Amino acid sequence: MEHTYRLVISCPDRVGIVAKVSSFLANYNGWIVEASHHADPSVGWFFMRYEIRGSSLPFGPDAFHIAFEPIAKEFEMNWNIRDSRDPKRVILMCSKESHCVADLLHRWHSKELNANMVAVISNHEDLRRMVEWHDIPYHHIPVSRENKEEAFSRVEELFTEYQADVIVLARYMQILPGSLCEQYSGRIINIHHSFLPSFAGAKPYHQAHQRGVKLIGATCHYVTQDLDEGPILEQDVIRVSHSDTTDDLVRLGKDVEKSVLAKGLRYHLEDRVIVHQNKTVVFG
Amino acid sequence: MEHTYRLVISCPDRVGIVAKVSSFLANYNGWIVEASHHADPSVGWFFMRYEIRGSSLPFGPDAFHIAFEPIAKEFEMNWNIRDSRDPKRVILMCSKESHCVADLLHRWHSKELNANMVAVISNHEDLRRMVEWHDIPYHHIPVSRENKEEAFSRVEELFTEYQADVIVLARYMQILPGSLCEQYSGRIINIHHSFLPSFAGAKPYHQAHQRGVKLIGATCHYVTQDLDEGPILEQDVIRVSHSDTTDDLVRLGKDVEKSVLAKGLRYHLEDRVIVHQNKTVVFG
Amino acid sequence: MEHTYRLVISCPDRVGIVAKVSSFLANYNGWIVEASHHADPSVGWFFMRYEIRGSSLPFGPDAFHIAFEPIAKEFEMNWNIRDSRDPKRVILMCSKESHCVADLLHRWHSKELNANMVAVISNHEDLRRMVEWHDIPYHHIPVSRENKEEAFSRVEELFTEYQADVIVLARYMQILPGSLCEQYSGRIINIHHSFLPSFAGAKPYHQAHQRGVKLIGATCHYVTQDLDEGPILEQDVIRVSHSDTTDDLVRLGKDVEKSVLAKGLRYHLEDRVIVHQNKTVVFG
Amino acid sequence: MEHTYRLVISCPDRVGIVAKVSSFLANYNGWIVEASHHADPSVGWFFMRYEIRGSSLPFGPDAFHIAFEPIAKEFEMNWNIRDSRDPKRVILMCSKESHCVADLLHRWHSKELNANMVAVISNHEDLRRMVEWHDIPYHHIPVSRENKEEAFSRVEELFTEYQADVIVLARYMQILPGSLCEQYSGRIINIHHSFLPSFAGAKPYHQAHQRGVKLIGATCHYVTQDLDEGPILEQDVIRVSHSDTTDDLVRLGKDVEKSVLAKGLRYHLEDRVIVHQNKTVVFG
Repeated sequence: MEHTYRLVISCPDRVGIVAKVSSFLANYNGWIVEASHHADPSVGWFFMRYEIRGSSLPFGPDAFHIAFEPIAKEFEMNWNIRDSRDPKRVILMCSKESHCVADLLHRWHSKELNANMVAVISNHEDLRRMVEWHDIPYHHIPVSRENKEEAFSRVEELFTEYQADVIVLARYMQILPGSLCEQYSGRIINIHHSFLPSFAGAKPYHQAHQRGVKLIGATCHYVTQDLDEGPILEQDVIRVSHSDTTDDLVRLGKDVEKSVLAKGLRYHLEDRVIVHQNKTVVFG
Repeated sequence: MEHTYRLVISCPDRVGIVAKVSSFLANYNGWIVEASHHADPSVGWFFMRYEIRGSSLPFGPDAFHIAFEPIAKEFEMNWNIRDSRDPKRVILMCSKESHCVADLLHRWHSKELNANMVAVISNHEDLRRMVEWHDIPYHHIPVSRENKEEAFSRVEELFTEYQADVIVLARYMQILPGSLCEQYSGRIINIHHSFLPSFAGAKPYHQAHQRGVKLIGATCHYVTQDLDEGPILEQDVIRVSHSDTTDDLVRLGKDVEKSVLAKGLRYHLEDRVIVHQNKTVVFG
Repeated sequence: MEHTYRLVISCPDRVGIVAKVSSFLANYNGWIVEASHHADPSVGWFFMRYEIRGSSLPFGPDAFHIAFEPIAKEFEMNWNIRDSRDPKRVILMCSKESHCVADLLHRWHSKELNANMVAVISNHEDLRRMVEWHDIPYHHIPVSRENKEEAFSRVEELFTEYQADVIVLARYMQILPGSLCEQYSGRIINIHHSFLPSFAGAKPYHQAHQRGVKLIGATCHYVTQDLDEGPILEQDVIRVSHSDTTDDLVRLGKDVEKSVLAKGLRYHLEDRVIVHQNKTVVFG
Repeated sequence: MEHTYRLVISCPDRVGIVAKVSSFLANYNGWIVEASHHADPSVGWFFMRYEIRGSSLPFGPDAFHIAFEPIAKEFEMNWNIRDSRDPKRVILMCSKESHCVADLLHRWHSKELNANMVAVISNHEDLRRMVEWHDIPYHHIPVSRENKEEAFSRVEELFTEYQADVIVLARYMQILPGSLCEQYSGRIINIHHSFLPSFAGAKPYHQAHQRGVKLIGATCHYVTQDLDEGPILEQDVIRVSHSDTTDDLVRLGKDVEKSVLAKGLRYHLEDRVIVHQNKTVVFG
């Protein structure tokens, strides 16, 4: 497949944004292969994402930046342009449970995910063999009440060393320090094993079983300092019944968790998500 | 379709329950057309529901009661038997919104719901014409802060006069007094316009929009004194996106609400639901 | 809600379409509230739909036509612009089954569907009372092997008299003559009680039961001369099991049919559908 | 978890089956943990499955056979009893595509599937490394027009050598000889990358894209001599739109394929499926 540039913009809504941007592109002969727009009148904000055939433009992202900057200024845009040939650098974090990690690694291995899996960090050794089979470095950083600060400062070092673009908490059972959440805001993706906002916190399947719910779900969201409250990337549910034990819910939940996380991550990797005021616009 | 008897039992779990009940039926030549069982080891309780071809038994519910009582005692059963030819007497309660009422009335009118719609009670006049077209009495009982006690004592009178078996709160925007909930425990069905336990309380679609959720849902549950906390009969969700306004969520939500309420009510009317400790077993 | 203009365009794909159209709008100060685009490289075609705030433009559809025509010519566009305040004129056609008709009438009556229900035509009398309660004229045109030609020439007359924009076959059990399909191409919407292309033809639920499928579905499509082969507007399925009888499938199927038809019709009424080579683009 | 015995019965329907079987169990103090029944009046057949706590019975499957045989004869039962501690011996067959194999192997490896994965057979070498990482023997048996007979006679030998209980065609792109299908009737499970009966045969996603369907699906079925016509174990669908390319459909289809195959296989491994006249009863 030919490479594309992904132009992602959000700005205050007003007349003429689409005209300005698309005329800019047309002037350089840019061929738009996918175009998405969203106006949110409740906050007066405008969102757009263009995917442009790479070969149709006479320049790359750097020159694009220079040429486009005056328009961006005029419309007070938050914006960026990315080359689809530069896959994002991803670090997976996990604990003992393998389902999300195995699923993401297989998708990556079979070239379904356009990402560069640079490392896996875990507070346990359990998944080392699976990860290393994929030729990805595995870092075991145990976390205890005593060593928390030290452990996460090592985690932070690894983020920097690997120049991570995205961190995926693939059932990582530790809470990241607020400073790290802040620093990597909009770049840390978590899978919560519940249909948020129901059953926030630990043991949601246990709660769901006790409550006798007829559906269980999972939520993929960006991590913020407010636990389980970050912008939602994707959610899904699965039907359950009285005949499902808590163990069944856990098993069924794993299927939803891994598919929801894979979808959420895919949106992020393809620059399909814009966050505005704790809500996402997902151009799926 | 031939009529059936529905035998519904719950009791402490132990060896021999199925053998005892099914042998009893076989001895009288009872032909089982549908059999459902559930054992919940977490509470040590057993649930069963048999649907028996009416013509295969030599007696009706009354004689059945006498013949079966010794077994019921031996196994400490909560149980009952109902004739499918005796449709339950249903009272609908509503306010101004018509979608659930219209849906239920149409299902009833086209003979999809095996029920006897005996009356509609509303705190508004809006739906009178629609209800009366179906030849169902419409009672307008306005509710205000001042007349609450009086109003609900009139409501209670109507329940009694109509010998209501079931009360369906089809988007009735008032809270029933605790005493009424108690008295009609397990017989008042509500549709909550949210995927409980998320967004309990009022304006859930507004909350959902602000939170940017990707699914919205509805919950059909028995009414208990704990608002929005009764045993769940049915739930479902529908996918939404950033491009849906709060108005869209309301509109999409109506579709889920009416289908979830219709399913939950159907289960109840066919004696498919057993409540135990705030959870339902639904033999769907 | 404020009125909008819906500009719907399809044309051969090339550079500059979006720029041209959006600049045209921006020059007239047109405020885009919703913008959708789709490029289909397999056929080299481009599709777009803009919803423009009505009050932001200095003219109405007629003047718009004159001003926009040069651009439309240059890009060889199929296009039109519609005012959201001009609801389409809809004729429903039905036989004996009421579920789709009742559902659509209620949505229309509660102002959910932006349409003008001008008449109902049926080959039976069954639904007259329901329709007339809504103050909509009901035309009974019996169809038999002998009178077919005459009957459908009367149907055609009614289409003309009522200036119908859309005809909805809401479980109308007769096959329209090919000439009528041709004449109203892209304007007759059918609900097929099956997940096409499975089980095309009559009695799909019977076939589905015999085949033991685990899902049944419904398909909303435009009617073409090739029966059950027109462009698909919407589809959905519902889960079934071995315990569902053919009657159950019919009942469950009705719920899917009415919701799929309502969605498909809604897309059409809001000018969200573009047909190209027997496929739809649905800007949902 | 404690082991159970799974008693699976189908026989002509008549009064007294449940009584006879459950009394037999009660006489030996057998504790039923799960009981499922189904009567199909259209064919006059009865189906049941009991899961009995292993420790509650005074004997194992062999003695059970002797004791139960008279009842089985009297009611002309097809029946068997299996010990949950004897996992079925599974052979996977695959070609080049990895998604179903990787999914099943991970489920097996994480102890979610109660099976004994004894071998993988493929007509290609591609998945050897993945399979061997799991310590499962990998047999490469190339299939060409010329060597077909020879190749499948080797396949048949392997089935025998490994004493395979179940063969799973996990996207194995070859057609098994009719004789093999016959011999392993009800024991070969296939995943068809389409919502059967739509788009039977090859390239279903290509067909689906051309037809513009709004849902794509997958079907897990037992293999019979009639290609794509065997009894259906499980089906599911996923929503797609005009913006999905054929490649997208393939990618989305993989997710449905693997989840549907895993569910279908699970039902089979837990003895939850009874086949009668080309239809399944699945006690899910």
